[in-house]
Amino acid sequence: MSIPDERIFPHATGTAAKTVEKRQEPQDLVFYSGWFCPFVQRAWIALEERGIPYQYKEVNPYKKERHFLDINPKGLVPAVEYKGKALYESLVLCEFLEDAYPTYKPNLLPSDPFERNYARIWLDYISKSIVPAFFRLIQAQTSEKRQEALAEWNKALTQFAEKIKGPYFLGEEFSLVDVAIVPWIVRDYIVAENRGFKRDDVGSKWIEYAARLEKRDSVSKTSSDKEHYAEIYGRYLRDEAQSEAAKATRAGRAIP
Amino acid sequence: MSIPDERIFPHATGTAAKTVEKRQEPQDLVFYSGWFCPFVQRAWIALEERGIPYQYKEVNPYKKERHFLDINPKGLVPAVEYKGKALYESLVLCEFLEDAYPTYKPNLLPSDPFERNYARIWLDYISKSIVPAFFRLIQAQTSEKRQEALAEWNKALTQFAEKIKGPYFLGEEFSLVDVAIVPWIVRDYIVAENRGFKRDDVGSKWIEYAARLEKRDSVSKTSSDKEHYAEIYGRYLRDEAQSEAAKATRAGRAIP
Ligand SMILES: N[C@@H](CCC(=O)N[C@@H](CS)C(=O)NCC(=O)O)C(=O)O
Ligand SMILES: N[C@@H](CCC(=O)N[C@@H](CS)C(=O)NCC(=O)O)C(=O)O
Repeated sequence: MSIPDERIFPHATGTAAKTVEKRQEPQDLVFYSGWFCPFVQRAWIALEERGIPYQYKEVNPYKKERHFLDINPKGLVPAVEYKGKALYESLVLCEFLEDAYPTYKPNLLPSDPFERNYARIWLDYISKSIVPAFFRLIQAQTSEKRQEALAEWNKALTQFAEKIKGPYFLGEEFSLVDVAIVPWIVRDYIVAENRGFKRDDVGSKWIEYAARLEKRDSVSKTSSDKEHYAEIYGRYLRDEAQSEAAKATRAGRAIP
Repeated sequence: MSIPDERIFPHATGTAAKTVEKRQEPQDLVFYSGWFCPFVQRAWIALEERGIPYQYKEVNPYKKERHFLDINPKGLVPAVEYKGKALYESLVLCEFLEDAYPTYKPNLLPSDPFERNYARIWLDYISKSIVPAFFRLIQAQTSEKRQEALAEWNKALTQFAEKIKGPYFLGEEFSLVDVAIVPWIVRDYIVAENRGFKRDDVGSKWIEYAARLEKRDSVSKTSSDKEHYAEIYGRYLRDEAQSEAAKATRAGRAIP
């Protein structure tokens, strides 16, 4: 049974393709990736930021192939095989990289216990308030729903923006909070072009922050050519996507 | 503007009242609690398990009092003030206690990086699949919705139960995964008495595991007399509760 989402461009392009090419050698850590996926991009950025050796493997997660389901029974990318054992969930993977590779710099979580957990509060905020608002916005079909979803998305970003210490979310150091949100910053042109979003409506602090994150080396290194994202997001914009995230959004459920 | 949820019994009773009495002295860590709250109970169990010194403060989170909102702008218990700085979110608080009090035993997260993050996958599972299913089940009003919600709750528990290594979720050691789920185990009589749930339907492994966790010292120490929970859950069972969790469940949103 084929779902439309299975028809995705088969591999990374642009700068991301060069990164993939460099990461073909076998390593302790095998990274199961979908070049297009914002959740993947989080773990990928963390790997690249910290120079952790990894082997890149492209997966089409919509195909739910046996070998991949053995690694992640949820059938979602990103996933990691580490010395034969499997882990998944983008933010868990980022935490894992901190724990398993403590000497690879920069560390993306502060070492101070208070600061570290202050960061985790905002990771939780991104998962609960920002990411679901994005999916609701792109999938909204009536003009009433779009307006409502846009207001919610703007509000979620505004509350986050108020807490940016600058230049990065936690202050001087780039951290996991920045990593967790940036994939939705580099994709915000989709809601700008199709749902009336303006960074301006979130404010000048947000504009600067977003521009700073977008320019980060690890972000370009993990980004493909824009045209290839268009096909995928087209399905969301017409509310035809059959991904787990799309179905959960439609059903009023938490994103898996 | 008063909401029905504000009328909760004002303090812990039974064994929990004795625990509260012992935790009145000022300490670096002030624990803002609601005696009745399953999310609170997680952090409370972690504090008691590990013998961390804390000062207990009872809050009625539905009142949204100024001082409390300064600590947690979301207006939810549990929250913590640590040397004058505030943190919240039950699982973040448990992680914070691990990070800030590493020498207090037992540690509730494994030290091995893989095992530690394997635990975090299941914490995430509890947050995304088990807790929301519980709220949907207690709030379900039609018999069709109740059947659907019961099936979902049973399925969520069954998938979790399959992974119990025994005697505890991760094996020999009691861990944060057990801490995170036990408040819903000690409250499952509500869905047993009102929604047709039977532990038996999840299987014998689950029955044993649930019974083992319920008997844990730190669990009794943080449990009040059963009769006082009844009033609170009555509001959920009639779908009259106006808590953030109840409203989110009704609206098809993630629990804040
Ligand atoms: N909560 C997961 C979400 C991952 C996710 O939804 N990945 C998508 C691609 S962007 C996927 O694998 N989808 C396959 C499907 O929905 O069937 C995480 O943070 O890693
Ligand atoms: N995600 C939060 C949830 C906490 C929560 O919902 N607490 C409830 C009591 S059980 C509360 O404070 N409710 C106040 C309200 O809903 O207004 C956590 O894990 O700490």
